[in-house]
Amino acid sequence: MRQLAAFSFCAAFLLAGCAAPAAEEARPDPSSRYTFWRPAPVEGAVEPSEVVANSAASDWRPVEPENLLVMDLEDGGRVVIELAPDFAPVHVANVRAFARANWWDDATIYRVQDNYVAQWGNNEAEAPMPPGVVESPPAEYERPIEGLSIRPLGFPDSYAPMVGHSGGWPVAFDPEGGEAWLTHCYGAVGVGRDLSPDTGRGGELYAVIGHAPRHLDRNIATIGRVIEGIAYLSARPRGTGNLGFYDEAKSERPIPIARIRLAADMPDSERPRFEVMRSDSDAFSAFVTGRANRGGSFFIRPAGGVDLCNVNVPVRRVAGSVA
Amino acid sequence: MRQLAAFSFCAAFLLAGCAAPAAEEARPDPSSRYTFWRPAPVEGAVEPSEVVANSAASDWRPVEPENLLVMDLEDGGRVVIELAPDFAPVHVANVRAFARANWWDDATIYRVQDNYVAQWGNNEAEAPMPPGVVESPPAEYERPIEGLSIRPLGFPDSYAPMVGHSGGWPVAFDPEGGEAWLTHCYGAVGVGRDLSPDTGRGGELYAVIGHAPRHLDRNIATIGRVIEGIAYLSARPRGTGNLGFYDEAKSERPIPIARIRLAADMPDSERPRFEVMRSDSDAFSAFVTGRANRGGSFFIRPAGGVDLCNVNVPVRRVAGSVA
Repeated sequence: MRQLAAFSFCAAFLLAGCAAPAAEEARPDPSSRYTFWRPAPVEGAVEPSEVVANSAASDWRPVEPENLLVMDLEDGGRVVIELAPDFAPVHVANVRAFARANWWDDATIYRVQDNYVAQWGNNEAEAPMPPGVVESPPAEYERPIEGLSIRPLGFPDSYAPMVGHSGGWPVAFDPEGGEAWLTHCYGAVGVGRDLSPDTGRGGELYAVIGHAPRHLDRNIATIGRVIEGIAYLSARPRGTGNLGFYDEAKSERPIPIARIRLAADMPDSERPRFEVMRSDSDAFSAFVTGRANRGGSFFIRPAGGVDLCNVNVPVRRVAGSVA
Repeated sequence: MRQLAAFSFCAAFLLAGCAAPAAEEARPDPSSRYTFWRPAPVEGAVEPSEVVANSAASDWRPVEPENLLVMDLEDGGRVVIELAPDFAPVHVANVRAFARANWWDDATIYRVQDNYVAQWGNNEAEAPMPPGVVESPPAEYERPIEGLSIRPLGFPDSYAPMVGHSGGWPVAFDPEGGEAWLTHCYGAVGVGRDLSPDTGRGGELYAVIGHAPRHLDRNIATIGRVIEGIAYLSARPRGTGNLGFYDEAKSERPIPIARIRLAADMPDSERPRFEVMRSDSDAFSAFVTGRANRGGSFFIRPAGGVDLCNVNVPVRRVAGSVA
């Protein structure tokens, strides 16, 4: 019952003036009417890269080939996405069906809006849906908190009652309402939709390439995140059309996609393999502490806090995995 | 005494369970031991772009030509930066001295690290300092809160006791300690330094091109922000060297800068002119409300909160300003 630990921890938070959990000392005086929350840096700050370097094999979980979407661009770039079926199962199943139908052959990246998103795909209105695609998926914008094992971040959030990590995913949740949802951190992948929530089947996707647009949370289906190759999206010229769409009248050319496949459908010898640090590992807790209290010789004043989207859950290639 | 308004407001916040100020109704039950903070969306959400469109002339302040740094790249790109002398006066004076000595002629953008920073300038170790440059500037990483007029954001922050806006700048502050500091939001410009805090004169600068690296706050001199042309930095190829430095051994070429000038030193006919929305205007309060409670036909569930770096203080060109 990891959630319960989270909640009682949070209640202590509220009563004590919302101090950081990593520092038991140096709590603010709750009688102060001026202090809302006071980050309290840890003594002997931690270097996150050292936590990763010193982690054990058991601190990581594999990315399942069925959840690994591999987008190859015609210019040679490769963007690798982990899908999150626990949060948007129908949309993820649709994405798999689109991949297996070669839906994205000859598709393009057609929108790159600075400090916001890059978007790609084929227009769903212009072609029949492949077999297995649910044409009006439900609005999978949140899910029940039950069934998740959430490690609470331990710092306040500007958008949600609580935030933390579950299975390596940055999530927000509302203990009272009982919902949890994937958040729009850097690299998050979502399903483009029209104004009606039951539109957006998964044939047009976007990835966050700027400061987390958390106002999109719970308004759109978030289906995963880019775990390698985000720069093949983020370093692209920005579109000068409305909302960053490439304006072909100004000779701005969409970026051709060669193909998008599931790793599960690739020959074993070609399959890239990744691992994500487990949220329930001690290593991850040390990593979060380090992100909130940066060690090394550069930082003179560790922050004593970190926001959900600046944690940057570690991902690594499995040794010997193809590039 | 705007700060006092901020503080008493914040105290009410703490007592009431930290609900959003924009919504007087729908406060959470403070007796709930599970709720840390519950965003409360505003009825009839607001479209931020409409707030800007309907603003009055008095809702804006001009950017002073002495605070406007214009970086022209050899490929034709122009990056425009507003300097913040109220936060780092010695470093800003140094930057002006560097500009007036043509320090950056033939300089380059030599580092672009994904989801972090782009950095440019000339190596300060390799040339004599121009006249007027203070060689060991003080560590201007924070300043007294006195003298600032801060509009509190009204939502919790993951890094600082309080955050808000002062003069159009996104600031964090500690009412108890009495310090305020500029934050590393998207587009923030800071002074590169070595490990010792009294290094970094202003001849090498960086801009944030990713999710706000707020852990840098109070660890480095933040001197302003990019108000136009950030994509000339953010859309560049990422360097594959350590920390995103361009690796010339791999034929990655730094991006040449033509020159960097102060608008004050440009002929009147060539000077670009900008305005920033005033933080103390009603329009800005409406804008923040809109950023926290997005209107329009797309959003089905306004967030009821916004983080400091997702407010995106409005900037506009003065009508008739040269491009």
